[in-house]
Amino acid sequence: MSALPLAPVELAKSYLLLNHGPVTLVSSAAGGRRNVMAAAWAMPLDFNPAKVAVVIDKATLSRELIEASGEFVLNLPCRAIAAQVLAAGSLSGRDLPAGDDKLGHCGLAAEPGRAVAAPLLAGCVGWLECRVIPEAHNQQAYDLFIGEVVAAWADPAVFADGRWNFPDADRHTIHYRAGGHFFATGEAFSLPAGSADD
Amino acid sequence: MSALPLAPVELAKSYLLLNHGPVTLVSSAAGGRRNVMAAAWAMPLDFNPAKVAVVIDKATLSRELIEASGEFVLNLPCRAIAAQVLAAGSLSGRDLPAGDDKLGHCGLAAEPGRAVAAPLLAGCVGWLECRVIPEAHNQQAYDLFIGEVVAAWADPAVFADGRWNFPDADRHTIHYRAGGHFFATGEAFSLPAGSADD
Repeated sequence: MSALPLAPVELAKSYLLLNHGPVTLVSSAAGGRRNVMAAAWAMPLDFNPAKVAVVIDKATLSRELIEASGEFVLNLPCRAIAAQVLAAGSLSGRDLPAGDDKLGHCGLAAEPGRAVAAPLLAGCVGWLECRVIPEAHNQQAYDLFIGEVVAAWADPAVFADGRWNFPDADRHTIHYRAGGHFFATGEAFSLPAGSADD
Repeated sequence: MSALPLAPVELAKSYLLLNHGPVTLVSSAAGGRRNVMAAAWAMPLDFNPAKVAVVIDKATLSRELIEASGEFVLNLPCRAIAAQVLAAGSLSGRDLPAGDDKLGHCGLAAEPGRAVAAPLLAGCVGWLECRVIPEAHNQQAYDLFIGEVVAAWADPAVFADGRWNFPDADRHTIHYRAGGHFFATGEAFSLPAGSADD
């Protein structure tokens, strides 16, 4: 049984978790180690099969674990854990003693993914489990990784039937600016959609 | 003299216009035609030289103009022109009579870019003029375009000294969900930054 509120999200609709541009926490695991980093530079890349793009710097431990495992999870944090997001973006897993764990240092609990070994982070409101589609040139030249989404989950109190519906200020997704400055995802508004995709 | 409120943004800081994941309007021009499309799937890719990544579907007129010119502009719309963003995302330039202009249909005024021919759209609050870095495999396999930012501008009433400071609700940037549903960029909040990049 999971301690996390994981309701399945249809893969072809999983881009809706990322479409509005929130900051992500990228988690990874390989060879008995696990890690987490913050990434604002992530976006959907395709609907079906669902794909994402994310930038993973060469200097990071996450890069090593993702290249070794071919897997990562894009976790969608909410405002309640903004301090943990900032900690994940400020500290490098490389600076910790071997055997030490950045998730613990950042105050992030986790359990293993269902389709990948990379962890699903507690306190998040959405999760995209991804397998790397190897693209050596992109990875080398641009630090750009492309992943296929192989499982997707959302906290049903926050995202259900393909829509975000934030129940309180703490559970809004967040957007990263720089230097410890964030925006919360703000007011929802709608216009007649014409022929736009739904 | 420009009718648009164009204050220059240092290229190495231009990622800050896009870092929080707002929706963009991609404008293009080639061979006497110009066009605009909405793109939520855009993100920064590098600081210096500044680069961006954006998804441009093969079916679009924008794709043809961008491939012909090797240029595009990522325009950052604000809430005041959300209806124009939705129109740009709902209508294809291919469905208009030859010689007709999607910008006019969408109610978008424009003037040419300073470094590229693609237009800068009125009513926006930031502009990233980009030259395509040709990557045929990405373009073909993923509809993914990489651009180098060669000029960047912001409305100084909304973005100055590397920071967003929205003066009123109409000039907040916006984030696209689906089907005519948006979020406004919401409340700004800050945490002690530790060693995070500024």
